[in-house]
Amino acid sequence: MIIVLKTKTQDKDVQNIEQKLGLLGMKVHISKGEFRTIVGVIGDDNKVNLEQIKSLPYVENVFQVLKPYRLVSREFREENTVIKVGAAAIGGKDFVVMAGPCAVENEKQLLSVAREVKKHGAMILRASAFKPRTSPYDFQGLKDEGLRILRKVKQKTGIIVETEVMDVRDVPKVAEYVDILRVGARNMHNFDLLKEVGKIRKPVILKRGIAATIKEFLLAAEYIVAEGNPNVILCERGIRTFETATRFTLDISAIPVIKQESHLPIIVDPSHPAGNRNYVIALARAAIAAGADGIIVEVHPEPEKALSDGVQSLTFPQYEEMMSQLKKLALAMGRTL
Amino acid sequence: MIIVLKTKTQDKDVQNIEQKLGLLGMKVHISKGEFRTIVGVIGDDNKVNLEQIKSLPYVENVFQVLKPYRLVSREFREENTVIKVGAAAIGGKDFVVMAGPCAVENEKQLLSVAREVKKHGAMILRASAFKPRTSPYDFQGLKDEGLRILRKVKQKTGIIVETEVMDVRDVPKVAEYVDILRVGARNMHNFDLLKEVGKIRKPVILKRGIAATIKEFLLAAEYIVAEGNPNVILCERGIRTFETATRFTLDISAIPVIKQESHLPIIVDPSHPAGNRNYVIALARAAIAAGADGIIVEVHPEPEKALSDGVQSLTFPQYEEMMSQLKKLALAMGRTL
Amino acid sequence: MIIVLKTKTQDKDVQNIEQKLGLLGMKVHISKGEFRTIVGVIGDDNKVNLEQIKSLPYVENVFQVLKPYRLVSREFREENTVIKVGAAAIGGKDFVVMAGPCAVENEKQLLSVAREVKKHGAMILRASAFKPRTSPYDFQGLKDEGLRILRKVKQKTGIIVETEVMDVRDVPKVAEYVDILRVGARNMHNFDLLKEVGKIRKPVILKRGIAATIKEFLLAAEYIVAEGNPNVILCERGIRTFETATRFTLDISAIPVIKQESHLPIIVDPSHPAGNRNYVIALARAAIAAGADGIIVEVHPEPEKALSDGVQSLTFPQYEEMMSQLKKLALAMGRTL
Amino acid sequence: MIIVLKTKTQDKDVQNIEQKLGLLGMKVHISKGEFRTIVGVIGDDNKVNLEQIKSLPYVENVFQVLKPYRLVSREFREENTVIKVGAAAIGGKDFVVMAGPCAVENEKQLLSVAREVKKHGAMILRASAFKPRTSPYDFQGLKDEGLRILRKVKQKTGIIVETEVMDVRDVPKVAEYVDILRVGARNMHNFDLLKEVGKIRKPVILKRGIAATIKEFLLAAEYIVAEGNPNVILCERGIRTFETATRFTLDISAIPVIKQESHLPIIVDPSHPAGNRNYVIALARAAIAAGADGIIVEVHPEPEKALSDGVQSLTFPQYEEMMSQLKKLALAMGRTL
Repeated sequence: MIIVLKTKTQDKDVQNIEQKLGLLGMKVHISKGEFRTIVGVIGDDNKVNLEQIKSLPYVENVFQVLKPYRLVSREFREENTVIKVGAAAIGGKDFVVMAGPCAVENEKQLLSVAREVKKHGAMILRASAFKPRTSPYDFQGLKDEGLRILRKVKQKTGIIVETEVMDVRDVPKVAEYVDILRVGARNMHNFDLLKEVGKIRKPVILKRGIAATIKEFLLAAEYIVAEGNPNVILCERGIRTFETATRFTLDISAIPVIKQESHLPIIVDPSHPAGNRNYVIALARAAIAAGADGIIVEVHPEPEKALSDGVQSLTFPQYEEMMSQLKKLALAMGRTL
Repeated sequence: MIIVLKTKTQDKDVQNIEQKLGLLGMKVHISKGEFRTIVGVIGDDNKVNLEQIKSLPYVENVFQVLKPYRLVSREFREENTVIKVGAAAIGGKDFVVMAGPCAVENEKQLLSVAREVKKHGAMILRASAFKPRTSPYDFQGLKDEGLRILRKVKQKTGIIVETEVMDVRDVPKVAEYVDILRVGARNMHNFDLLKEVGKIRKPVILKRGIAATIKEFLLAAEYIVAEGNPNVILCERGIRTFETATRFTLDISAIPVIKQESHLPIIVDPSHPAGNRNYVIALARAAIAAGADGIIVEVHPEPEKALSDGVQSLTFPQYEEMMSQLKKLALAMGRTL
Repeated sequence: MIIVLKTKTQDKDVQNIEQKLGLLGMKVHISKGEFRTIVGVIGDDNKVNLEQIKSLPYVENVFQVLKPYRLVSREFREENTVIKVGAAAIGGKDFVVMAGPCAVENEKQLLSVAREVKKHGAMILRASAFKPRTSPYDFQGLKDEGLRILRKVKQKTGIIVETEVMDVRDVPKVAEYVDILRVGARNMHNFDLLKEVGKIRKPVILKRGIAATIKEFLLAAEYIVAEGNPNVILCERGIRTFETATRFTLDISAIPVIKQESHLPIIVDPSHPAGNRNYVIALARAAIAAGADGIIVEVHPEPEKALSDGVQSLTFPQYEEMMSQLKKLALAMGRTL
Repeated sequence: MIIVLKTKTQDKDVQNIEQKLGLLGMKVHISKGEFRTIVGVIGDDNKVNLEQIKSLPYVENVFQVLKPYRLVSREFREENTVIKVGAAAIGGKDFVVMAGPCAVENEKQLLSVAREVKKHGAMILRASAFKPRTSPYDFQGLKDEGLRILRKVKQKTGIIVETEVMDVRDVPKVAEYVDILRVGARNMHNFDLLKEVGKIRKPVILKRGIAATIKEFLLAAEYIVAEGNPNVILCERGIRTFETATRFTLDISAIPVIKQESHLPIIVDPSHPAGNRNYVIALARAAIAAGADGIIVEVHPEPEKALSDGVQSLTFPQYEEMMSQLKKLALAMGRTL
């Protein structure tokens, strides 16, 4: 930690801060400059309450040198984490495709999608039983009935299934029905939910909040890992910006940044940032090229009848086309698909 | 609702859409233009699944004419909602000040703040027992012990108390201990929590999410009101933008916009957008001048010892100075404080 | 300047950086920590090419301690700069109102507005002869004819006049016709234009770019002052964010931040961020309450016939109402209007 | 155009608007709904002053149906525009790489880069003689001397050269020295400059402004094309968002959106959004995969000695590595490189 003191700071202030930090077991180096005095703090930043230091009247600014996340950081673990679930391994050489409808609508719909996506190479079926919706008047999901359908489709097709969990009280139940749990973007800062999914051992897809920085995203993952569940799959799904041509702005740069900062796998959701199926394939291609470990994409047999997100759902022929293009790119990228 | 069809749309497509909407009890007006065909839909927009219409291959764009929120809208109720709690009335002529520390730290601290803020005109004590924190390693609040302290301080001083609720499971308990519940910005899209606080009857302060549009903010309020609790106090607390000189960007324009769109009271939190106590008083003044019904502001006896948000907490003398300035402005604005 | 070195940096790297900075006349303090080595640089940061230091392979991060702007900073000059033009003084006790139509449309229109705004207390007439327009097919201003009308209206009414300059080649001509020049938001980073208006001595209103940080805004002002023109009036006019209920988001916090950082006067344009006349008065009130030195506001006799910005232009009765409200607030704020 | 009238609009208002539009040669269709009256306007939207309509007191909202840009739109011209300059063709099957240092620093430096980038497949040398800099105290470019060096290097190596033009007065001179002119992000809304480069016939790279929507970006291109120069190469270079881990946020979705909306070629600058050479190669790969027609990338023989943008400049070995990776992806994408 580096503390910059205001001009005209007095010697007793410097001594005061030295003493304060000394009590926490930190050493300090004082550099008196022409215009400012700088205090370099030697030791583990994370032991110090940064805000208290910033609150001191003679402190101008505080810079944190160490990363605030630990367990999820590349410094903590150098090699990539590979998360295995059934035959799938996320974070390794495979480029893993998760595909399916926005919501579970009925068994026939889900079964049809499961068979189609599996046929062309998706290993995991995505579908929500619980739906977070901006308006209370929109379709809120089939809930428990949706979970039962997910299990049935898994049994019939052998595909791995994932679904969203929104309510802390639902975590054990959802974990019973599906292979992978998903925490949606709107709940990335629902800390009680993060702690709850940290208590189970099934893999958790953590979607980035639409206004979360990468640092906050990794700290949200840290909540889950710190609670005991190391199986976190990060998911970049677009951030909110001023641009309205797309629903969100896919932050493709987050892929190389996160690959450098963390050992956790990172996948991309190309559907939500696009908000329009016309752009989804291009974004899926960008994802694999940028180094993502997989994608989670919306596919629907009849998008114009979908109960939600129809506009951004791929049709079956589009999905097939996307897979064919991704296979070529996987080859170029040295990955298997 | 207005539907714009793509160029080269065929007659059968137009008939198809007319039929679809007819089944929902809507009438349509077709306007064939030189370049586009426009379908004006007569009837209640909200009955139609907008996304399904947008998903049709021959539809270029869909514009919603009616507001998606109802119960919270000014069209639903013309006069302002005034929420009464103890001697306070929020949304009327009074400019209501809620003040207190970020977190309950101990009884002595809270009692000292309660007395100080009451002395200079704050009617409500704010303080969090449960703390949503970006890092799992930061102070997470005193939890139940904090609730007990809040109740004790209320009994000793007679001040009205409010606190944040984060976990759906805590709603009944928190409602037992305090007069007003607060849903934080990070939980504005935690729909299960919104529904849960919609089931109680105590007033709820709903803070705007840092990336929520005003429309989404009002829809979140709609969740609570639709569940049966009409006592929602909206709170503008800054949105996330590219500017880093302040912690968030206070969206002061939200005040007149919300006053036009909704009958609910709207208050301002000047502390979180500032992120620095030097700017808080100016923002509080802007709030009252823009037409807000109150503020919720952080005050701490010794900010440099605060367990959280010390940097943005007002000292006692600053708080007193703020109240003195606000009283002058209240007079100019024709409000009582 | 503070330089944070990567883990595993070798002694020869530290010596290398020490030597590099020594050649520039800077001294360094080395703090070897448990995890990182920190180099505190003593001397004038601005002599060092920050990017070169950051480019060194063993450097992890560089923090700038000194502010990059100098002449416009509060450290350079403690007291407020007051800019006098005719009978007006901007930056002092007066709250200065600049009002007028978006564009000069014809003499009759401008004369009528000039008389109306003067009657209720505006000291300065705003009106653009050159119009920056997003579309090449929109009205681009009366150009030279507009300048002539501005001069005529000034002669007939005695009001002070200001107008925008867009093209470097027009600066001398525009400076001849009007009392105050305006650099629009879109040109805040047109450095050649900044240098050109820095060569004249008439006051310049510099509007903040819609994506400019406050730091960049002050650096743009520095360009003008460094060129020799100290008469810069800063103008906050809203930044671009995700919110679409208003045209831009007025960054009201910029007022206290800039008042702390700089000695230059700062005014607010409430019209452009609102984008809708219904919200303009509330924003004007927020401006004076936040501590701004004035406003620049759009007023039109018949907004529905305005060639540009009609939606956000106040009608004459609204303008009169605004002035009456601002006078009350000026009193409360201890300012004259 | 679609006009939504306020509730309680009277018949005479409807007649009034009908008459107004009739005078402009437009027909209207009136749809009276339960809650709102909708006016569908038949004819060319662009003839109507949208803002005047919006300013009418009984108008609630106006939706534009037709795109505001024409000449650059895909509707105006269905097939891709391919811009030829020397042996290069931008917008066709080739993926065109433009590479070079941020700034021309001296002949030796530029010659060395030109040879290196050419060797591995770049067809165009990028380098700025005029530098727009946020601070007036930073290196401002070699100016005319830089132009002379560019010409010399072109003569010695045969490479195609491009450079930025900032000042309207410099356009003819710059056009004389280089093959392609570049309008930087900060000048995307400098309309006088757009008009000036519209008067020449050499290709112009138009970089997207950091806060410009895609619609505004295309309208800026429309300025150039409308002036007579059809040779516009669009360049996505990152937008400003709240994320600070990278310098800007590359809006990769802009590629498929622009490909759908416009026939102009679109390239990507991976260097500026990254702000750090570690991320540049991943972004370059994402660009080709998303469907861009080329990239413009910063390369420097000794980044730590670069006078600007050293942090984000690729070293020679990194550049070579990038080209090798891009060649594989070009193959997968069916493009030549």
